[in-house]
Amino acid sequence: MNVITLTTDFGTRDWFVGTMKGVILGVHPGAHVVDLTHEVPPGDIRAGAFALASACPYFPEGTIHVAVVDPGVGGTRKPIAVRTRRGIFIAPDNGLLTLALQREEVRAVREVTNKRFFRGPLSHTFHGRDLFAPVAAHLSKGAAFTRVGPRVSEWKTIDFPQPSVEGTRIRGEIVYVDQFGNAISNIPEPILPSSTGLKIRHRNKVLCTLHECYEAVPAGQVVAVVGSSGFVEIAVNGGSASKSLNIKSGDPVSLVHQGQHSR
Amino acid sequence: MNVITLTTDFGTRDWFVGTMKGVILGVHPGAHVVDLTHEVPPGDIRAGAFALASACPYFPEGTIHVAVVDPGVGGTRKPIAVRTRRGIFIAPDNGLLTLALQREEVRAVREVTNKRFFRGPLSHTFHGRDLFAPVAAHLSKGAAFTRVGPRVSEWKTIDFPQPSVEGTRIRGEIVYVDQFGNAISNIPEPILPSSTGLKIRHRNKVLCTLHECYEAVPAGQVVAVVGSSGFVEIAVNGGSASKSLNIKSGDPVSLVHQGQHSR
Amino acid sequence: MNVITLTTDFGTRDWFVGTMKGVILGVHPGAHVVDLTHEVPPGDIRAGAFALASACPYFPEGTIHVAVVDPGVGGTRKPIAVRTRRGIFIAPDNGLLTLALQREEVRAVREVTNKRFFRGPLSHTFHGRDLFAPVAAHLSKGAAFTRVGPRVSEWKTIDFPQPSVEGTRIRGEIVYVDQFGNAISNIPEPILPSSTGLKIRHRNKVLCTLHECYEAVPAGQVVAVVGSSGFVEIAVNGGSASKSLNIKSGDPVSLVHQGQHSR
Repeated sequence: MNVITLTTDFGTRDWFVGTMKGVILGVHPGAHVVDLTHEVPPGDIRAGAFALASACPYFPEGTIHVAVVDPGVGGTRKPIAVRTRRGIFIAPDNGLLTLALQREEVRAVREVTNKRFFRGPLSHTFHGRDLFAPVAAHLSKGAAFTRVGPRVSEWKTIDFPQPSVEGTRIRGEIVYVDQFGNAISNIPEPILPSSTGLKIRHRNKVLCTLHECYEAVPAGQVVAVVGSSGFVEIAVNGGSASKSLNIKSGDPVSLVHQGQHSR
Repeated sequence: MNVITLTTDFGTRDWFVGTMKGVILGVHPGAHVVDLTHEVPPGDIRAGAFALASACPYFPEGTIHVAVVDPGVGGTRKPIAVRTRRGIFIAPDNGLLTLALQREEVRAVREVTNKRFFRGPLSHTFHGRDLFAPVAAHLSKGAAFTRVGPRVSEWKTIDFPQPSVEGTRIRGEIVYVDQFGNAISNIPEPILPSSTGLKIRHRNKVLCTLHECYEAVPAGQVVAVVGSSGFVEIAVNGGSASKSLNIKSGDPVSLVHQGQHSR
Repeated sequence: MNVITLTTDFGTRDWFVGTMKGVILGVHPGAHVVDLTHEVPPGDIRAGAFALASACPYFPEGTIHVAVVDPGVGGTRKPIAVRTRRGIFIAPDNGLLTLALQREEVRAVREVTNKRFFRGPLSHTFHGRDLFAPVAAHLSKGAAFTRVGPRVSEWKTIDFPQPSVEGTRIRGEIVYVDQFGNAISNIPEPILPSSTGLKIRHRNKVLCTLHECYEAVPAGQVVAVVGSSGFVEIAVNGGSASKSLNIKSGDPVSLVHQGQHSR
């Protein structure tokens, strides 16, 4: 259990993330800390949930994932720790783990209350340093999961839009725009019909055909592909779909068979 | 002595920081390098000093802190190494260690002159790579501190503004604006009176009451809290105080008891 | 062979780089991953090549360098692995290794085809995660280099402009602008004449004299130095040459002896 990942909205300009690593190494010098991202838009629980869920399946068993997108820090939200078949997740109980846990077998959920695992008295504004990092380090070092605090039976989830299939049309929406400007939808590869010739629509306009890779179209042209997270995404080969097409998170998109122009 | 932290203004866009890590690992493969931040505003010794001092108390004993905000690289400023009770600091002698050393017990200060610890001939522009990184690596690997160079009795400090208490008013100033737009003052928690009802003033305008956490006020409202570094800071819950209130580093702020409106 | 470096244009805002690290640690828990940079301008093979070549000489022998600036991902470009006297390079065969390999003794070049070293079926858009990272991890763990795939006799290189010496004038061009705004030319230190008094010209205007360090001129003034990569660069002491002088990559520059004003 040496690998600890960090997902936060702390950015990298200040000393916040480095401080969490100092705390972790003070508790467990053998920990191997990996940054998933620290540039979740501030307070954007949905984006943080998507980033964590996209990355965590690629980490080895036993990895401890710490996620701190925590607009309610210092307030009444609880910190929780979740043991799954593959690892441990530690986060504020604000829905940040929703997507990641949908893909994991949850074994136990506990509120984090054991002050022995905290670092000194809790500040009101930086539980990443005072609570989440040291708890992860103690678990990484071998502390029993049951010691973090009492079992809880409920935890908070947030709604993620689900795609719907209506005849030959699949309706979904954009859920994440990455820094390349690729607009990732919630339409997963497994629900795509096997037939080729699928076209993607955005705001009632047919954008392009679903292809296998960005380069299937000339540079600068719009292309839809099944992206690396397993969802249909809209891209511009060598450019930014977000900028060129003004696509934003929340925008409805749909997939239709070529030739069908029904709304 | 395996942990080496790096604090620089090199940014992460180019290869500079990675190169320092390559040099360190070439000398000491067992070193564990942690980035504090590389986004100190270019040449801003004061901001670098604040970042380093805020983070270093959270690192384990024996940590070696390398700080390179070095507008005078290649000129006459000396490189120094400082051994304290808790660790070692290596930096250009330009005041960058001022704040960190105020909180440490200094045991010995030496100028770094031993070319055996450098990496090849010094370039004129990148002592991070050629001097600071390899010296840290040699010390991390176990080289005696006394070998870095001759003892020096003086080193450069920079002035940091000190808060003043005038009756029931505490006058201070903003010393750092973090990337969330939180404006951190130089007024430390220990000098706050125990009474509640403290209000914070900025440019002769009462902004808000001192609260315990950001969430004590509705989203979008101004709030003052004792931040995670132990200083009073001005924030906007879910927003940027720096932008909303146009607060900048150097701005005077003061704390007064509720109801008192004297200047 | 524990050190693996990563050079990409993936940025750090999303989860892409963290995911590559998860894959690496799943294959080889003892790997030590170092970020060179993830902020190569998207698809800019030339800039990526410059960054990699500038940093790799500073890494210990046996280092494995993974570089993924890969606008052709999912298309027909091959992934290659190159063994040199000092280490291993893994990248798409698009010229990204051109500069680095000019400075290394190449021992063997192979196309990467062995699916046993991939992570699951290849996605069409993220070979960093599915191919480059796990192949590096397997080699790092000790897999024989010959197993990655068949030997190839040709690989792609891209043209880098070469400086020319015309009498007492050296003509070159700007090849990289770093984030400080320093404009790095392709004129290497070894071809400089030993005489002093060299002046640098940009767009037929004499800018400044070649000095030893940025501080040789007052703050805010233009200065030329031999930078840390060994090339002549144009800087503004404490400022940005790129902004102040509007210097861009590709701009011609030349060095002339003081007093000579011939074009």
